[in-house]
Amino acid sequence: MEANAADQMAAQWSQRYSQCAGRMTSSIIREILKMMADPELIPFSGGMPAPEVFPVQAFQEASQRVLEAQGPVALQYGVTEGYPPLRQFLAQRMQEMGVRCAPENILIINGSQQALDFIGKLFVDPGDRVLTGNPTYLGALQSWGGYGARYATATVDAQGMRPDEAEAALASHPAKFLYVLPNFHNPAGVTLSRQRREQLVEVASKHNAFIVEDDPYGELRFEGEAQPPMAALDPDRVLYLSTFSKTLSPGIRLGWIAGPKPVIDKMVQIKQASDLHTSVFVQMIAYDLCSRGFLPGHIRHIQDVYRERRDAMLAAMKASFPQGVTWNKPEGGLFLWLQLPAGLDGMALLKQSLKAKVAFVPGQVFYPNGGGENTLRLNFSAVAPPAIREGIQRLGGVLREALG
Amino acid sequence: MEANAADQMAAQWSQRYSQCAGRMTSSIIREILKMMADPELIPFSGGMPAPEVFPVQAFQEASQRVLEAQGPVALQYGVTEGYPPLRQFLAQRMQEMGVRCAPENILIINGSQQALDFIGKLFVDPGDRVLTGNPTYLGALQSWGGYGARYATATVDAQGMRPDEAEAALASHPAKFLYVLPNFHNPAGVTLSRQRREQLVEVASKHNAFIVEDDPYGELRFEGEAQPPMAALDPDRVLYLSTFSKTLSPGIRLGWIAGPKPVIDKMVQIKQASDLHTSVFVQMIAYDLCSRGFLPGHIRHIQDVYRERRDAMLAAMKASFPQGVTWNKPEGGLFLWLQLPAGLDGMALLKQSLKAKVAFVPGQVFYPNGGGENTLRLNFSAVAPPAIREGIQRLGGVLREALG
Repeated sequence: MEANAADQMAAQWSQRYSQCAGRMTSSIIREILKMMADPELIPFSGGMPAPEVFPVQAFQEASQRVLEAQGPVALQYGVTEGYPPLRQFLAQRMQEMGVRCAPENILIINGSQQALDFIGKLFVDPGDRVLTGNPTYLGALQSWGGYGARYATATVDAQGMRPDEAEAALASHPAKFLYVLPNFHNPAGVTLSRQRREQLVEVASKHNAFIVEDDPYGELRFEGEAQPPMAALDPDRVLYLSTFSKTLSPGIRLGWIAGPKPVIDKMVQIKQASDLHTSVFVQMIAYDLCSRGFLPGHIRHIQDVYRERRDAMLAAMKASFPQGVTWNKPEGGLFLWLQLPAGLDGMALLKQSLKAKVAFVPGQVFYPNGGGENTLRLNFSAVAPPAIREGIQRLGGVLREALG
Repeated sequence: MEANAADQMAAQWSQRYSQCAGRMTSSIIREILKMMADPELIPFSGGMPAPEVFPVQAFQEASQRVLEAQGPVALQYGVTEGYPPLRQFLAQRMQEMGVRCAPENILIINGSQQALDFIGKLFVDPGDRVLTGNPTYLGALQSWGGYGARYATATVDAQGMRPDEAEAALASHPAKFLYVLPNFHNPAGVTLSRQRREQLVEVASKHNAFIVEDDPYGELRFEGEAQPPMAALDPDRVLYLSTFSKTLSPGIRLGWIAGPKPVIDKMVQIKQASDLHTSVFVQMIAYDLCSRGFLPGHIRHIQDVYRERRDAMLAAMKASFPQGVTWNKPEGGLFLWLQLPAGLDGMALLKQSLKAKVAFVPGQVFYPNGGGENTLRLNFSAVAPPAIREGIQRLGGVLREALG
């Protein structure tokens, strides 16, 4: 078929796209990641775990055990809700975090991103309002944007989302739910204080809103004291999401939703129509490792590696960043957040930075309704300390030049 | 929290459900499958591969090779489009089937069900019409029902979907696309003739509609000659779906969509917002097995096992079914389709049948707009020949009793 005719066919397909498809756009992060094929680039831009910490040998052993003992089960269709022993294990783990939780409150999914998509499908009609932090996780905005969500926001400061702004937003317009990243916020790196967790639950209760608590990084605490999840404070009001992506492996795509049974039951219907169930083989490998007590020691190892990388980045920033640039010291997770002097623009800075072979994500992409031009996100988990030092030194040069 | 208060909370959640959620219902098949926990039940109701044919040892070896050679890649985030060597392999395989196809025309997904969901998301707005066979695959109806699809239908007879009825339906109302199961139709077992493939492509072209060609069973041909996919006849008009579920394992959740690049690009956006990507580990295992030439011999083994089961079922039906009940002889796949004398009702029959510890699926669930009360679907792949003979004998008794 000639190019011209092919173009005509392409136009015919796109004329048939749904309204949902028309709302979907490609992620800026995705475009940045494409640039990262350059091996000389130092990538502070991604959100990837360090591949050096992946438990490859443990996976080898677990795969063998699972296939030897229960091969035909691992390779057959499974139930939509998830592999029952893994649901049981996760319910137990939620209980240990203080959350009232039974296996029937758990749905196993392909990583937390799938939970965000299902939440959009279950709750968001075009024009519906969702209350997020400002900034907030881009993947959530992408999922819900497709369903036609509009956003109200509350500032995320050093203590996390501000309850006073959340309350003011809810008082002016109702929202379907609050979206909160409680621990080591992506992108802002901050952790929601105990007091604010209680206040946000109270605000949600007062305004009859629900809470989506997205906690992919909670286990990666290097220092300080863990705070109770909001799901522990009001389990009937909170959908709690987490994942094995940051503790075992992101490549296997395995996470879970914990929540009230009627909501989980509805999510099961959505999951069934979406992809029947999550890979049984992968679920059984994860359960094998969990049930043998592999995780706690492995997570301590990850914490040690990431703490060293965070500290390397903080020290390098202190040594080479110009005055006027400020940043936080996250107690865990994968990200640092920078504030640049007003007037500096993260997007323009990225262009210069890429010339110096350093990548980051301009903070403005994390602001649902605009703003944040003078912020940027740095990932410290995926780069080893020597490259962190080199990359931060280069970025310091770019910043000094930009500040003239 | 008291039960009463919990009920109130549940009501508060459900008041916030989207319109999409309101359109989703639980599958009847799902409910039937739940009954199958009874080990004495002979399940002709499912659509499962025989677990005896799962290549457990090949999976053990492939897992080891993948993790040893490329563990950190297998466990890290991957690209949304899919593992590049697997895309390359599948494009080659499509070319061998006569389809013009490059890796950029392939998206790797979590089994074909995910393709059905993405197609709904990309093309179906509430009230949009989709043209399906009558009967057709229930999982597709479930996915698209959530997006608010309405259905036009064309009878599926011994040669597959009738082009004359398809044309009449399109002439009376436009449809977003035709949904066709070309080989060993689920539930009807029939294969679309070569001539009808050409006619349906022509009808679609004339009425400016597209075709979704869902081909999970094409490789499971026991006898007769393979027909070219419709994607080979008009690659710009067809989205072709297939899966490893029936050749390697359904439990791993791995399939693909092949189609025009602009549509695949849009599907990639949807995939990214849905679950980022399909398990890299699982993709690499499948690629390892494919690239070593494991599939052709393994598929021949599956064909041998299933042919024997089909033949056992046909022979038993001939021996014990009463006059007036008719069935087809599928050339491949997993299913046989029964026509009962008019007046008999599959749902009522199922109740009697379950008392005799035999399960099947009443055909009417596969009719988008009602009908088919006197049909039923039998699966022959998941039950070994002795149990097939026993189950068909019992079902024969139930049928004789129903016919008085």
